[in-house]
Amino acid sequence: MSLTIKLHFISPAHLNFCNKPTCSFTAYNSRIPPRPIYHSNPLTTPSTSHKPRRMQGPVRSPSVIKSSLIEPDGGVVVDLVVPESERGAKTVEAESMSKVRLTKIDVEWVHVICEGWASPLKGFMREDEYLQSLHFNSLRTKDGSFVNMSLPIVLAIDDATKESIGSSSNVGLVGPDGDLIAILRSIEIYKHNKEERIARTWGTKAPGLPYVEEVIASAGNWLIGGDLEVLKPIKYNDGLDHYRLSPKQLRKEFDKRKADAVFAFQLRNPVHNGHALLMNDTRRRLLDMGFKNPILLLHPLGGFTKADDVPLDVRMEQHSKVLEDGVLDPETTIVSIFPSPMHYAGPTEVQWHAKARINAGANFYIVGRDPAGMGHPTEKRDLYDPDHGKKVLSMAPGLEKLNILPFRVAAYDTVAKKMAFFDPSRAKDFLFISGTKMRTYARTGENPPDGFMCPGGWKVLVKYYESLQAEDATKQAAAVSS
Amino acid sequence: MSLTIKLHFISPAHLNFCNKPTCSFTAYNSRIPPRPIYHSNPLTTPSTSHKPRRMQGPVRSPSVIKSSLIEPDGGVVVDLVVPESERGAKTVEAESMSKVRLTKIDVEWVHVICEGWASPLKGFMREDEYLQSLHFNSLRTKDGSFVNMSLPIVLAIDDATKESIGSSSNVGLVGPDGDLIAILRSIEIYKHNKEERIARTWGTKAPGLPYVEEVIASAGNWLIGGDLEVLKPIKYNDGLDHYRLSPKQLRKEFDKRKADAVFAFQLRNPVHNGHALLMNDTRRRLLDMGFKNPILLLHPLGGFTKADDVPLDVRMEQHSKVLEDGVLDPETTIVSIFPSPMHYAGPTEVQWHAKARINAGANFYIVGRDPAGMGHPTEKRDLYDPDHGKKVLSMAPGLEKLNILPFRVAAYDTVAKKMAFFDPSRAKDFLFISGTKMRTYARTGENPPDGFMCPGGWKVLVKYYESLQAEDATKQAAAVSS
Repeated sequence: MSLTIKLHFISPAHLNFCNKPTCSFTAYNSRIPPRPIYHSNPLTTPSTSHKPRRMQGPVRSPSVIKSSLIEPDGGVVVDLVVPESERGAKTVEAESMSKVRLTKIDVEWVHVICEGWASPLKGFMREDEYLQSLHFNSLRTKDGSFVNMSLPIVLAIDDATKESIGSSSNVGLVGPDGDLIAILRSIEIYKHNKEERIARTWGTKAPGLPYVEEVIASAGNWLIGGDLEVLKPIKYNDGLDHYRLSPKQLRKEFDKRKADAVFAFQLRNPVHNGHALLMNDTRRRLLDMGFKNPILLLHPLGGFTKADDVPLDVRMEQHSKVLEDGVLDPETTIVSIFPSPMHYAGPTEVQWHAKARINAGANFYIVGRDPAGMGHPTEKRDLYDPDHGKKVLSMAPGLEKLNILPFRVAAYDTVAKKMAFFDPSRAKDFLFISGTKMRTYARTGENPPDGFMCPGGWKVLVKYYESLQAEDATKQAAAVSS
Repeated sequence: MSLTIKLHFISPAHLNFCNKPTCSFTAYNSRIPPRPIYHSNPLTTPSTSHKPRRMQGPVRSPSVIKSSLIEPDGGVVVDLVVPESERGAKTVEAESMSKVRLTKIDVEWVHVICEGWASPLKGFMREDEYLQSLHFNSLRTKDGSFVNMSLPIVLAIDDATKESIGSSSNVGLVGPDGDLIAILRSIEIYKHNKEERIARTWGTKAPGLPYVEEVIASAGNWLIGGDLEVLKPIKYNDGLDHYRLSPKQLRKEFDKRKADAVFAFQLRNPVHNGHALLMNDTRRRLLDMGFKNPILLLHPLGGFTKADDVPLDVRMEQHSKVLEDGVLDPETTIVSIFPSPMHYAGPTEVQWHAKARINAGANFYIVGRDPAGMGHPTEKRDLYDPDHGKKVLSMAPGLEKLNILPFRVAAYDTVAKKMAFFDPSRAKDFLFISGTKMRTYARTGENPPDGFMCPGGWKVLVKYYESLQAEDATKQAAAVSS
């Protein structure tokens, strides 16, 4: 029995915020962080009298306003950061241990695990967890129920590191710069069969999968699992750390805002007006259902992304503009960074994206066409069937308590001159502006059609692509002169 | 919470039946079927007074003797064969429908589905079932619980067939010889992404996977799902149909025998004394646990196998000898054919093998090293980690009610001159006789070490390999003379 609710958004599009004169441009500087754009909303008050209409499933009544609109997987949000009082002693202890050197992306996973995004997971997966993840996309908990766990969250080591660990039970984890980051306890080392991991996770072995090329290809032939203890909170010092709210902090923020519904929107791209349309439409529908204070969690992914994706700092600046320009309402929106690396593993990965948001306290999850998908690396087609993501998500073990909100695809309506939900009865009026097309616009300095993206947000992108071209030109000049 | 029981068989080996003088040879003739070797056992009586010792989990008390030692998945064994009274009308109806031509292996799947081995599945998978199988190795039932379903059970059609079906709701399924076999109702046609299916099912895309080469490579680019109605029981007329007991018939047979435990042994190879050792040892242990009448279901796979496996008729003759020679006790053994085709998909497939036996009424399942595995088709290693099969099986969703019995590997003990459980403390005394090695012995006419297999059973194999060589020689002579 699936407890998910499928809403089909069929209302005519009516939102077109981006031509507002207030949509101004602020010079882009990736080193100067934009202001935080999450803040409490004094206008909303808790509702105690109503119940949502047309709701089924385990969503709690809005009368119960507390940090748990939705229970985290395993009952509590895992927190593996060592209390400050124990930090000194644990660091001394860790220094005496065999060491495992982490990559930048390994550290991103340490971050993800230690803040409880992957609750109830308490460290890098041991083989039992790895096999369950690989075969069942879920883990069985002690009470016999399942939590979703679709991506193997593993740490690879090479032969020499395995040798150096010998029969130790615990190891120290060292960051790329040599700083001691964490302890992994009661370790288990097992084989890293890359072929099987890739085939089962991505459903292909085609060369050119970004995470495979970046992370797995060069990884060692062993995986090391164990219980994680992180010596201090993970910080990136990139001017964006204030955006990195942990699941616990997000739950607290939702409480503070007295949210009676939280709907999460995962993204790794700039926000255009099609995105805004469906986020605003979702809010409207939640209000229609009887919720008084639905809060949007605009939750860009902050870990590894492929080379041609727009970098995090640029995206954060762009999102900031979208809020400033009123395309999204700052009063009912929280923007925060989801620290996970990106796999581009389509239906397998979208489960991870949804599951992590359960732990962060979101009880509604918006899913669109081809989530976490990309073009096939060697064939002229999408790697995944664009509909499989939402289908798989709606059936996935462990996600029953989450309300899945599939949406229809939005495109540029050349008649109404705005982004609107695609209407197949007048397909010729619609223009699909792909990521590639958008990048081409930005690179060539050509403006996209009016109403595609608010001007302030668009200028952030243009500025970024100009900086890329300037960089390329400098490199070419250097190459010629050397 | 896993409810499986893990027994580690650590008793010294003590069984060596095969040097008995009664182990005689009967001329092998693949066209003359061996006698049925399942029959009721008048010696056993129902026990009502004891409870099994050292048992945990949902196994019923032996005092409740009925067809359900274990409940079939979904509560009832699916039976999709049309009652004889309706056969005529349904056949007439089917004749008017668009037709889908089945391969030999498609018919094996029709057989599997219609007898309820895949209960609660009622036909070839629609996309929702296919996706759940591919991603979760399980299906969610209407009450929210999971049944295991690790292999996609699908029917592929090509573009022309899809075109000919048009918008029909129902199709007739026609066998390779043109005979109308079944109806598929309320059909759904969806894309057959072979790359994804293969990668997720086998965990590899390496060329040379037998089922892929035989079935999938040449299959169409569409899958058709729907509800199956089979017009008459599937028969092969190969002299072995009397061995093909359906799950319902097996459950009845277990009742008749008053079994208080049924332990299934899946195999696709001749039975050697290592197999016999563990089957007899399992029985002894079940008796130790307090069961009074444990019955062995010796359950050779009867569908598609790869070219170098021993054919079904030869195996059945060999199994017959093993029973005749007393290596296994005919009084407490049922030999029957499991009609499924073989995928050689290791940890994914072993779940199917176990799940199907639940539906047949077995509440204990024996699993060994590298179940359903094979050598990697392009690399010099096993395709799967030999331990993954039993690990995955013990954690698989939907198999909680089945007692999994892992066993230690048996090998030839050159000191004791018999098959025995491998003792790593004197590894050098043990000889591992692989399938390849066994075939080499049989082909060259060399005898395997005494005690490897009973002479009667061995002679069946020698005879088979001699017939192969004779066939080869005839072919070569014909090629030379033509």
